[in-house]
Amino acid sequence: MLPFDELFYNLRLELRRGSLILAVLAQLRTEQYGYVLRKSLTDLGLDIDENTLYPLLRRLETQGLLTSIWREQDKRNKRFYVLSPAGEMIFERIRSEWKQLSASLTRVIDSNLTHPIEK
Amino acid sequence: MLPFDELFYNLRLELRRGSLILAVLAQLRTEQYGYVLRKSLTDLGLDIDENTLYPLLRRLETQGLLTSIWREQDKRNKRFYVLSPAGEMIFERIRSEWKQLSASLTRVIDSNLTHPIEK
Repeated sequence: MLPFDELFYNLRLELRRGSLILAVLAQLRTEQYGYVLRKSLTDLGLDIDENTLYPLLRRLETQGLLTSIWREQDKRNKRFYVLSPAGEMIFERIRSEWKQLSASLTRVIDSNLTHPIEK
Repeated sequence: MLPFDELFYNLRLELRRGSLILAVLAQLRTEQYGYVLRKSLTDLGLDIDENTLYPLLRRLETQGLLTSIWREQDKRNKRFYVLSPAGEMIFERIRSEWKQLSASLTRVIDSNLTHPIEK
């Protein structure tokens, strides 16, 4: 990988990391198992690979934001995840934070910078 | 700090980290020194403390995305930063990435989840 591409790739990762956590919490307001969760995120334009998603789900469960339960579906045992009550509260706070952040950032990056450079 | 607040605080940090980098690159399309940069970000709703901003500027310069120059202004020497040509290219790519990410995330978190939970 060229240094420039690697730099872009790493910045992209940093930009996506926090957003993916928010997206996972949002999707898990309704119970889902890993495969379906991943597919629904991909369909929404937020592709996340398994090596990122599964550790993230375990981490969020350890932190008490998700609960999980094994259940049989289509004759196979699947682990379903859903927000815990604490997860629901955190999600609402993070969502509100995101809206402010997103609005500020849109203003910053879309400003056309017509002011002269002060020297 | 209560565990719940600490958890929220850390998630908020993760959410903001990538966004702040993008905001810094956006602002440095025109030359600025640290104090003014920080103030302009705060005015736009993106407060960033000095212990985050200055190491970030040094990192981005080391990565070749910024250049800096010492210059006297108001009888004091100040270090001015501006995007390098590589920084301008990266900024355009990251900006376009952000727009897609932001649109996807808005769809995810604003969906009202009227579909029943499948069991």
